[in-house]
Amino acid sequence: MKDFLSRYKVLPNKATIFTLLSLLIIGGYSAFAQEEAGPTAADAMFTVNNTWMLVASFLVFIMHLGFATVESGLTRAKNTTNILFKNVSVVSIGLLTYALVGFNLMYPGDFSIGQYFGFAGFGIASPEGAAGLIDYADGNYTYWTDFIFQAMFAATAATIVSGAVAERIKLSSFLVFTTIFVAIVYTIAGSWKWGGGWLDQMGFYDFAGSTLVHSVGGWGALIGAIILGPRLGKYTSSGLKPIPGHSLPLATIGMFMLWLGWYGFNGGSVLSADPGPVSLVFVTTTLAAAAGVIGAMIVSWIVFKKPDLSMILNGALAGLVGITAGADVMTPLTSVIIGLIAGVIVVFSVIIIDKYIRVDDPVGAISVHLVCGIWGTLAVGIFSTNPDHNFITQLIGVVAYGVFTVICALILFLLIKVIMGLRVSEEEEMAGLDLGEHGMEAYPDFQQISESGGSTMNYPASEG
Amino acid sequence: MKDFLSRYKVLPNKATIFTLLSLLIIGGYSAFAQEEAGPTAADAMFTVNNTWMLVASFLVFIMHLGFATVESGLTRAKNTTNILFKNVSVVSIGLLTYALVGFNLMYPGDFSIGQYFGFAGFGIASPEGAAGLIDYADGNYTYWTDFIFQAMFAATAATIVSGAVAERIKLSSFLVFTTIFVAIVYTIAGSWKWGGGWLDQMGFYDFAGSTLVHSVGGWGALIGAIILGPRLGKYTSSGLKPIPGHSLPLATIGMFMLWLGWYGFNGGSVLSADPGPVSLVFVTTTLAAAAGVIGAMIVSWIVFKKPDLSMILNGALAGLVGITAGADVMTPLTSVIIGLIAGVIVVFSVIIIDKYIRVDDPVGAISVHLVCGIWGTLAVGIFSTNPDHNFITQLIGVVAYGVFTVICALILFLLIKVIMGLRVSEEEEMAGLDLGEHGMEAYPDFQQISESGGSTMNYPASEG
Amino acid sequence: MKDFLSRYKVLPNKATIFTLLSLLIIGGYSAFAQEEAGPTAADAMFTVNNTWMLVASFLVFIMHLGFATVESGLTRAKNTTNILFKNVSVVSIGLLTYALVGFNLMYPGDFSIGQYFGFAGFGIASPEGAAGLIDYADGNYTYWTDFIFQAMFAATAATIVSGAVAERIKLSSFLVFTTIFVAIVYTIAGSWKWGGGWLDQMGFYDFAGSTLVHSVGGWGALIGAIILGPRLGKYTSSGLKPIPGHSLPLATIGMFMLWLGWYGFNGGSVLSADPGPVSLVFVTTTLAAAAGVIGAMIVSWIVFKKPDLSMILNGALAGLVGITAGADVMTPLTSVIIGLIAGVIVVFSVIIIDKYIRVDDPVGAISVHLVCGIWGTLAVGIFSTNPDHNFITQLIGVVAYGVFTVICALILFLLIKVIMGLRVSEEEEMAGLDLGEHGMEAYPDFQQISESGGSTMNYPASEG
Repeated sequence: MKDFLSRYKVLPNKATIFTLLSLLIIGGYSAFAQEEAGPTAADAMFTVNNTWMLVASFLVFIMHLGFATVESGLTRAKNTTNILFKNVSVVSIGLLTYALVGFNLMYPGDFSIGQYFGFAGFGIASPEGAAGLIDYADGNYTYWTDFIFQAMFAATAATIVSGAVAERIKLSSFLVFTTIFVAIVYTIAGSWKWGGGWLDQMGFYDFAGSTLVHSVGGWGALIGAIILGPRLGKYTSSGLKPIPGHSLPLATIGMFMLWLGWYGFNGGSVLSADPGPVSLVFVTTTLAAAAGVIGAMIVSWIVFKKPDLSMILNGALAGLVGITAGADVMTPLTSVIIGLIAGVIVVFSVIIIDKYIRVDDPVGAISVHLVCGIWGTLAVGIFSTNPDHNFITQLIGVVAYGVFTVICALILFLLIKVIMGLRVSEEEEMAGLDLGEHGMEAYPDFQQISESGGSTMNYPASEG
Repeated sequence: MKDFLSRYKVLPNKATIFTLLSLLIIGGYSAFAQEEAGPTAADAMFTVNNTWMLVASFLVFIMHLGFATVESGLTRAKNTTNILFKNVSVVSIGLLTYALVGFNLMYPGDFSIGQYFGFAGFGIASPEGAAGLIDYADGNYTYWTDFIFQAMFAATAATIVSGAVAERIKLSSFLVFTTIFVAIVYTIAGSWKWGGGWLDQMGFYDFAGSTLVHSVGGWGALIGAIILGPRLGKYTSSGLKPIPGHSLPLATIGMFMLWLGWYGFNGGSVLSADPGPVSLVFVTTTLAAAAGVIGAMIVSWIVFKKPDLSMILNGALAGLVGITAGADVMTPLTSVIIGLIAGVIVVFSVIIIDKYIRVDDPVGAISVHLVCGIWGTLAVGIFSTNPDHNFITQLIGVVAYGVFTVICALILFLLIKVIMGLRVSEEEEMAGLDLGEHGMEAYPDFQQISESGGSTMNYPASEG
Repeated sequence: MKDFLSRYKVLPNKATIFTLLSLLIIGGYSAFAQEEAGPTAADAMFTVNNTWMLVASFLVFIMHLGFATVESGLTRAKNTTNILFKNVSVVSIGLLTYALVGFNLMYPGDFSIGQYFGFAGFGIASPEGAAGLIDYADGNYTYWTDFIFQAMFAATAATIVSGAVAERIKLSSFLVFTTIFVAIVYTIAGSWKWGGGWLDQMGFYDFAGSTLVHSVGGWGALIGAIILGPRLGKYTSSGLKPIPGHSLPLATIGMFMLWLGWYGFNGGSVLSADPGPVSLVFVTTTLAAAAGVIGAMIVSWIVFKKPDLSMILNGALAGLVGITAGADVMTPLTSVIIGLIAGVIVVFSVIIIDKYIRVDDPVGAISVHLVCGIWGTLAVGIFSTNPDHNFITQLIGVVAYGVFTVICALILFLLIKVIMGLRVSEEEEMAGLDLGEHGMEAYPDFQQISESGGSTMNYPASEG
């Protein structure tokens, strides 16, 4: 019986042993009976928790469809194949590298260099030690569940960069960057908090990753967009030219998929199906997203005179990024406040970055993930119901992640630029990366039609 | 221990206390042991139930993507941005107003005006009283879970109206209507049955909302479409002109998302994860949707000579709306009959409303939600396996909801028409609401191309 | 109490009875107490298992959206309505025939003709015997859950054929084929393994259907594509002409939806929420899909010089089909190997079938489902952690399913060809099946524009 119980980490304590002994003495068969009588309550609870974590994992997975469609919807038709290709391949690379090294960098168990770096070895476990893999995480879920949930997370960090560097980065260079970024930069940074490293010990709080996932991805996006420079024709002598995305339905599908996936992203970060916190997280996540829409709607209506769809889509995402750091320590009311402010921030941030800082970010990834990621992390220091959280520690975490990620991304992007080049040729950029990088168009039936007059497509369709 | 147990509403009854006493006497440590030995079966059951209700909540959430894509797919490209904007903002408004007043209007606890009206106060709870919020609903789920599931429902009622008034209603007017409709009309009406009001006490049955959600939304849709009048060019001296939707893939994605979401809409309405009823509801919901497709396919094939895709999409939705009132009290066979008849009804209803009554409903919302909502509610009186359900009571419920909603919607729409106007200008309607209301096109890369010849787009693209 | 326990198939064994007796003697009220004290651990476990199986069912449902969008995305705009129509109607037909005869052919209980054929009668059960329907499947889930999960599976087998025969098959002929194929061929074949028939008794292993679902569908696809012949203009005297799909975003949405759904397809095939196997299956399924993308990316990059998006989409699906037969008996490492090889296979298979065998398969269904289905089934014989699995038995299973399905599909397709014709007219194929079969275009706003110059659209839009 000990074997069975310990498999689920419910080792009998002294009191239980007394009980069992007394039952044994009284009934003679009691202990045996309990062993044979089917599942225990602890087994059932373990199974619910594990099932919820797997549901959360597939929800985070579907965020990748969200990223793919938001990004392709908000960019031009001539680059759509390239953007879809990047998103599909980055997810796959992220999952595989996380299995190879990422998981063991992020959760090293012991740190070998201060509380800054540790590595538990290559590869995830084989099922030989199946019992050991199930006996895991305080009886909440198995080793494999832990891996798959974290792997889905890791893959999102890489995708965030993709949007900001869209429509001009070389495919091969992007894939090299992203492989190293998700395998090493994201995971080492992550270990500082979620792996039990120095920021965790300092009391820094980031529930589901406003900083660890979103601002880390956002810093990478910022550096990439700066080093690459703007898209051709974006900033001219006659001023800034807006380059509208080619399909708002695609972008809207993406926003809904990301919002949906966020129920797993935040809801799964409870790390169990505990009814109180998971349901609170559902409420705060929902209200922050809705408030983000309203915030962006009001501001865009005032500033642009007309309400802007792409802004309210980004407003929802801004609210979601904003609530992520503290989704479990907010009241419904403070989650509305955080989301509303995030929705306001994202509109001004898009305008400022585009018009005044003149960094060309086709989908607003820097505003959504970096700026609102920072806002959400600091908001924990302001609004948290947990008195241990404070603004200064939150700020230290934000700055630490910023400095580390900026340095890593700078080195990576510059190395890649020198070694293999970072940007496609002017001709390729004009014709579209779909033809240059892939030799195929995303909408051949419609793009052929435009041959004569369309400014965005230049080549006849030719496929693989 | 009492604290812990009572938190989950499993207060020890007399028998349990006897047992515990006897165990205490015998083993000396037994009671303590039980307290320390980890989760109880009741805890595990509470957690499963709550987890299922949260899964159901995110499924209902994804219905909003379904509404957005069905509606935009079945209307013209020049109004797509507007339709997507409406759907995203309506969901957000619906969720926030439900948090502010809706939840407490729909579930007032006590009614202050007969069994017709009650209000439990502004705002949902803060987590200060966290234990109290978890101790809820007979041990099936937490207060927050209840709120989020019901809030997702509420937001769907508002979206139903959107389809019928599409392509001609002013954005601001629609948002005002929808805010009041979802915050007050839907919720007060809902309280009559789900809040324990007069129709509930009379024995009226509406499992998941064929009437409370769908026909309430459908009545609003009907009144809106009548007051607005048809789209320009729809009914001319030379007869009725069909205005085909611009993207059947988008509409098909929407239908699948709605069908998917319905597993949460109906499955969650069991209000627990109880295996028997939830799995029965999955079967009846599925078979009714499938039968709705077949019904609409056969009729449209006979009537139009060729099978119509938009009709079978509406057939699936018709079957789903039809089964919603009685999904838990039908056999698999009666669910097929209900769905089949709904699929037949929806085709004839679309034709009759369009050709003979001459109400212009771009997406068939009135036929799907109102007509099939009524059919489903009455079907409970015919086919229910529960002998307490009867046709007359069902009819009374249908009429009561009809009268109340029609009066409220009439007042609302007419007030808005007088105060702020309801319909966009002819010029704006011709050019498309995307340019008039938002200044942006949904497909700039493709719509630019059409500048010269396309009849649907008139302006060059210009974005925020 | 016995009633309650037996309802959940946890009949008290001898030891339990002893315990209960001793408790009765000691405490006097103990047995009564236990009866009244709320749910047992077995109840909770039953509820978790059942809930997970229902989640898996809705995940498999969403695969139908995946099939619909992959298939329509990879074919031409002029056939999109037809393809969407086929997918929606086939799902509905599949679900209804499965309720009528399929379920009882696939799980006959007793076989009446050797271990080859059995039939448990028409129709699924009514809720009269509700207790009996809940008392089912070793306490893991209800009868209705079993039905709905298997029905969702069945509907996928029919959809696989659809892709290979796209853009030229008559709608009515396809619907007749598919009805018989899913109702009878798939289900009888399935009974040989999952119904406990001769292949099951021989030790053949197919966890979630690499062979039973995917290669059965794939053989049907192959025979259909051969008998129909290639699309007009595909193979000309001047060589083979690639016919690119009309929307890669649609195809990408489809791939993500299929990948998502596969978590239910494979994860639900554990037939319980048992944490160890379900989480292992999530890991192997994920890594195989990711490795399939990488395999197809590398090969397509080398062979075509440029990386091909449609190939990596098929690579993901190839990896998923490949892991399906052994998702629960692989290590993470072997799942990567299986997926990688599947990704390599699918690219070469597409080229060989298209260029050398000259069978025209518009979406690559034969390569993905048949070829990789065979690969996955044989891979169990090579890599399985279960020593009982062996290559020869796996090969026998593959051949048996091949022979049976090929014969059935041949007879069916040839009979239909003789009786009602199989292929649309040349004129209809040129103009597109959307106009010929349905009288409606998928994208009227954009297709109207092309009237003058577009080669793919010839008719003005005219709807229902």
